[in-house]
Amino acid sequence: MFERFLSKETSYLRTSEIRDLLKLTEGRNVISLAGGLPDPQTFPVEEIKKIINDVLFNNSDKALQYTATPGISEFRKELVNISRMRGITGINENNTFATVGSQEALFMLFNILVDPGDNVIVEAPTYLAALNVIRTRRPNFISVTVTENGPDLEELERKVKDITNNGKKVKLMYVIPTAQNPAGTTMNIEDRKRLLEIASKYDFLVVEDDAYGFLVFEGESPPPIKAFDKEGRVIYTSTFSKILAPGLRLGWVVAHEDLIREMELYKQNIDLHTPSLSQYIAMEAIRRGVIQNNLPKIRRIYKEKRDIMLEAIQEYFPKDSRWSKPVGGMFVFAWLPSRIDTTKMLEKALQKGVAYVPGSSFYADYSGRNTMRLNFSYPKKEELTEGIKRLGQVIKEELST
Amino acid sequence: MFERFLSKETSYLRTSEIRDLLKLTEGRNVISLAGGLPDPQTFPVEEIKKIINDVLFNNSDKALQYTATPGISEFRKELVNISRMRGITGINENNTFATVGSQEALFMLFNILVDPGDNVIVEAPTYLAALNVIRTRRPNFISVTVTENGPDLEELERKVKDITNNGKKVKLMYVIPTAQNPAGTTMNIEDRKRLLEIASKYDFLVVEDDAYGFLVFEGESPPPIKAFDKEGRVIYTSTFSKILAPGLRLGWVVAHEDLIREMELYKQNIDLHTPSLSQYIAMEAIRRGVIQNNLPKIRRIYKEKRDIMLEAIQEYFPKDSRWSKPVGGMFVFAWLPSRIDTTKMLEKALQKGVAYVPGSSFYADYSGRNTMRLNFSYPKKEELTEGIKRLGQVIKEELST
Repeated sequence: MFERFLSKETSYLRTSEIRDLLKLTEGRNVISLAGGLPDPQTFPVEEIKKIINDVLFNNSDKALQYTATPGISEFRKELVNISRMRGITGINENNTFATVGSQEALFMLFNILVDPGDNVIVEAPTYLAALNVIRTRRPNFISVTVTENGPDLEELERKVKDITNNGKKVKLMYVIPTAQNPAGTTMNIEDRKRLLEIASKYDFLVVEDDAYGFLVFEGESPPPIKAFDKEGRVIYTSTFSKILAPGLRLGWVVAHEDLIREMELYKQNIDLHTPSLSQYIAMEAIRRGVIQNNLPKIRRIYKEKRDIMLEAIQEYFPKDSRWSKPVGGMFVFAWLPSRIDTTKMLEKALQKGVAYVPGSSFYADYSGRNTMRLNFSYPKKEELTEGIKRLGQVIKEELST
Repeated sequence: MFERFLSKETSYLRTSEIRDLLKLTEGRNVISLAGGLPDPQTFPVEEIKKIINDVLFNNSDKALQYTATPGISEFRKELVNISRMRGITGINENNTFATVGSQEALFMLFNILVDPGDNVIVEAPTYLAALNVIRTRRPNFISVTVTENGPDLEELERKVKDITNNGKKVKLMYVIPTAQNPAGTTMNIEDRKRLLEIASKYDFLVVEDDAYGFLVFEGESPPPIKAFDKEGRVIYTSTFSKILAPGLRLGWVVAHEDLIREMELYKQNIDLHTPSLSQYIAMEAIRRGVIQNNLPKIRRIYKEKRDIMLEAIQEYFPKDSRWSKPVGGMFVFAWLPSRIDTTKMLEKALQKGVAYVPGSSFYADYSGRNTMRLNFSYPKKEELTEGIKRLGQVIKEELST
């Protein structure tokens, strides 16, 4: 009965066939490489239990009560500290904001900043759930190809210049410089600086998603673009979902104070504030070094799982495929021979007992139809090998038809 | 630097002078009757501690992990149970939805249902934070006066008829039938049924906010309008903020399955899902009877505080004022002599060491300039008397100038 009551807003929110297909796998004997869940082994359960007991003993009046919209003041100080661990300096608590996962940060930022028709630059491919929020704003998308080293900056500057030459402006670029989701690439420091120079020259904002900044398990994790930002042009967002526990729904933003104030007004309408208990847990987890001490274990587990997945892919995928060798994060991205349509192939894969996310969902223009995203963080090791083996068979069958 | 980057969206999000004024009181020797916080004495701290320890012992893999967007399946079954305690029957878990406080429910519902120009009926006065969300949708507001027994249903039907006669439709009515915030009124059962008949006759939706349904401390709490709904026309929302702890940020919706699915799509964009840990805590608090057993204590505390406030008002307010005698909830609403402008008077009150919320914020058309909302749930008993005494003096001085 509700169809006729719905606002126009909802027409931008259509469920995808893929999501519906993947829902069907629940409870069936399907190895899912489609998810994006952390390995529950990485949750510091005992430490969290201890923290909660202490917090409820010492601070129950505050931890169970309403709090300020941008976050608990002491927690925001710890957000400064954890951001500093990523190389971001020269900020104070008024530059930080606690959100319900980094998803809420993205939801707020794109609603606050993007009007219909605005020019918005995204990587191709890029994070599906960010793309979905941006879509609801009906912008003009400009896609920039992700190479092995991150977004193609020559292509970026050429496209931005074109827009400028036509008398128009770019509003913002959404970018994931480290262990990019889904492509697995990491930008080097020079490219990060170069991207910031382009943003400054053509006067657009950079929304930087650093979800995997602490999850680089090979080599150093370069500082985020925000670390080089002297103009307040970069809006940084990250999450506790991968370094503590996603069930807390806790993310954060580092940005210019003026923007933080806009976020405060917007969030009052959405949900008043982020759960106080989650904030207290993360605050103590930073203070006690729980997060810092847990990182080596998370990185070790994910590196091991990545290696297993890459080995299996090497063995079972056709030779004319290529795939990312991510230095961090939770995903491998694969480019299959161009005759393969991974969206069409999904149903067959599910029948053979393996799930993945077709890559076209990660492209603003739904291209990349021969690509797929594979998650290695959640499945068990033996499932990784078996899943990729099944998938390799499906691909080979698909190629031989 | 951000002004020029902001979307049009943000122009509907301006901070109020009142909010800014009230912020100034923080940390100063001001008795605040302006808040809306539960008394922390009502938090069942030990029971919550026990629950969390058990949950993290038995279910840490799930309680700290991502979960489904509408909520954890077992929790949604408990939402059916707690809704049944309010008299809502004939629903199953697919009619429920877990939200980040009932604020997020309101945010989603008004975004999903209201387009610019839609006719939206609200009570005058009504809940400030709901009004703020509805405002961002730029509807055509229709205000219906709240009498001592809730919204004036004759006025309601007359106004709806006018709209219908002009060939237009009403989209929805937002209503708080029990212990209305701010007016403190409670509709009787006959009026609830009558309102539903009007909604059915003129085919509009009812968004029912039952935040205080469990907090009636005098007489019986009538069943919500949703309990009489056979068409799926009523969308029910409530919250754990007043019956368990607001810091968990947990609310829920009961509605037609079609609408629940729309909410799922929308919430994927906002924050993926409501914190799993909060859901587990509330789930166990329902199962173990923690909430049910705690209600008599909450009601006793609030009844006592209400009585103290009403006595002080009787003593210190000018005789030509009138005020609500709420049978539940957390607020008294006062109508002062019409020459008083409570917005203008606020600064003086703050100087005298007492804060309140000027009533005009609770009116869609910002009328009710001689009204104010007074909170009795949070201040200490001695603060209630002293706060009202100070306020009475301010009012009398204002009247004598």
